[in-house]
Amino acid sequence: MTTTADPSPQPIRTDVLIVGAGPVGLFAAFEAGVIGLTCQIVDVLGRIGGQCIELYPDKPIYDIPAIPSCTARDLVERLMAQVKPFDVPIHLEQRVETVEQRDDGRWTVRTHRGLVFDVAAILLAAGNGAFVPQKLTLDEAAPLEKRHVHYSVPRLADFAGKVVVVAGGGDSALDWALALRQVARRVTLVHRRAGFSAADSSVAQMRRAVEAGEMDFVVGAIAALGVEDGVLKSLTLRHIDGETQLEAEHLIALYGLVADLGPIAQWGLAIHGGRIDVDTSNYESSRPGIFAVGDIANYPNKQKLILSGFHEASLALRKAYVYAYPDKKRVHVHSSYDAKLAEKIGSAG
Amino acid sequence: MTTTADPSPQPIRTDVLIVGAGPVGLFAAFEAGVIGLTCQIVDVLGRIGGQCIELYPDKPIYDIPAIPSCTARDLVERLMAQVKPFDVPIHLEQRVETVEQRDDGRWTVRTHRGLVFDVAAILLAAGNGAFVPQKLTLDEAAPLEKRHVHYSVPRLADFAGKVVVVAGGGDSALDWALALRQVARRVTLVHRRAGFSAADSSVAQMRRAVEAGEMDFVVGAIAALGVEDGVLKSLTLRHIDGETQLEAEHLIALYGLVADLGPIAQWGLAIHGGRIDVDTSNYESSRPGIFAVGDIANYPNKQKLILSGFHEASLALRKAYVYAYPDKKRVHVHSSYDAKLAEKIGSAG
Repeated sequence: MTTTADPSPQPIRTDVLIVGAGPVGLFAAFEAGVIGLTCQIVDVLGRIGGQCIELYPDKPIYDIPAIPSCTARDLVERLMAQVKPFDVPIHLEQRVETVEQRDDGRWTVRTHRGLVFDVAAILLAAGNGAFVPQKLTLDEAAPLEKRHVHYSVPRLADFAGKVVVVAGGGDSALDWALALRQVARRVTLVHRRAGFSAADSSVAQMRRAVEAGEMDFVVGAIAALGVEDGVLKSLTLRHIDGETQLEAEHLIALYGLVADLGPIAQWGLAIHGGRIDVDTSNYESSRPGIFAVGDIANYPNKQKLILSGFHEASLALRKAYVYAYPDKKRVHVHSSYDAKLAEKIGSAG
Repeated sequence: MTTTADPSPQPIRTDVLIVGAGPVGLFAAFEAGVIGLTCQIVDVLGRIGGQCIELYPDKPIYDIPAIPSCTARDLVERLMAQVKPFDVPIHLEQRVETVEQRDDGRWTVRTHRGLVFDVAAILLAAGNGAFVPQKLTLDEAAPLEKRHVHYSVPRLADFAGKVVVVAGGGDSALDWALALRQVARRVTLVHRRAGFSAADSSVAQMRRAVEAGEMDFVVGAIAALGVEDGVLKSLTLRHIDGETQLEAEHLIALYGLVADLGPIAQWGLAIHGGRIDVDTSNYESSRPGIFAVGDIANYPNKQKLILSGFHEASLALRKAYVYAYPDKKRVHVHSSYDAKLAEKIGSAG
């Protein structure tokens, strides 16, 4: 198994592109191998395991069949061991951006870092989608995005000599506010409460910086942006006892990450409630050749159980096989009935 | 967990009756506990584990998610450990016979040994159904059944002094032919080939008995039964070079067991190809309140994978919950999110 983030100008040809390296994506890669499909995996995150590793790596899970108790970390390790015989490439920190169906029926899929795949089918096992920054809900914020309103800090130097407001109460907000005070003309940290979810040491450092007059801290909610000719001038902050104005040339909102379908939402798939509609006999989306399994799939009585994703992936791949090998009759059903396969899996264990 | 085969005149009241103590039935019992349903299991076989324990107890299985390799025996042990905290009663050697829906919507289910259940829903996880003897395909055989044509030997004494033909080439056929020669007037073993699937020692013993004149052995296929006034008189045997007649008062055909839905086929459920049609959003049969999961279920693109049964059972039970508690809103989804449940499962592990 290899992990890579290098862009490649040459399309990577494989039967199925699996989007998501969480438990369902990993098991899908194993099942693909069992039925004779090649596949590769991409994931937007920097490590294997998906959101259950990000969100609850060490919390016990009790409802994986025949595993009375395991952590998400255990589960991912077990699935990695299971898929190992098939040596599936996993490309991390790659967000799928665009899909295009070619005249021959195959798909060209591009990632934000320039990887290009040439595949017969796409299996979306992307959990709740990619995590993206939580944005401001104010209408006037969107037109200012990347010019005056920011959800990350690509380069500190961009804020040199500017009047900057950092909004948020977590580690990210505090760390960036402290860093920006070195280059900005003025930095104000704005947070809804006096309490923080950041590390105590960061909070103490911020309070010292405020006492030393190096930055400000204001408790309040951002109620409006003051914009003149497309340029941010000020913020309206709402407090318990009224509103105040605060000068601002740049607003950096660091409210944490939320799940979002991201670019997949633009693929022309039927979507309800942020999840992709599928047919429950093969977990195919409204675009034949694109499948959705696990938490990202939507159908009546859908349960967000990891074990459901395993089943959904198994059925989806059998339909995907038809796209990859339209002239071949698939014969594999049970892993233990195929001697050659059993040898491959058994000897690698 | 208790196992019992005692008949009970008092109906056993529980939320769900699970038919089948194989992997899918066992996991269904666990899932029922997780979502707050009570259940009991019945199985026609004499031990827990279902057909995978009967057919391939020690063959490795590679496609259970997150378990790179296990035997059917391992799998059943793991599932038994997983369901243990819920203390689910399992009734072995009980074949479900009849169902009857009451005016209040609940079901009365009876087994062939007299157990009576009063349940809100029935989950059929019966694999390929119950195993039954392979019968003769001759039209004239059915009317003679239990009088002159037999598929098992309930009492050896019934054949005392009779002219008996035993048909078959397995252990059962040889063992009964050898036993019957002690009481019958004449015993002839009939088999299609000279070769046997029985133990070598049984074959050797049979050949010695034939040499000693204690019984006969004939290679041939039973082509017709000679019947006079509803009484079996002879068999027509087909050989490579023609046909012969053989005197017979009783024919005992021991051709092995085949899977069969058994009495379930009479429950008024829509059935195709020996499997029960279900809706893939909740795995409910054509009779609301009766669900079918695992190999016994039929739907487009159905794969006979154990992991599919796990998913199917999980979704079916959520619908079953509505029948058991129509006024309650179910809240449990993930086992690890429910502290009380986690404590119950976690402490019992």
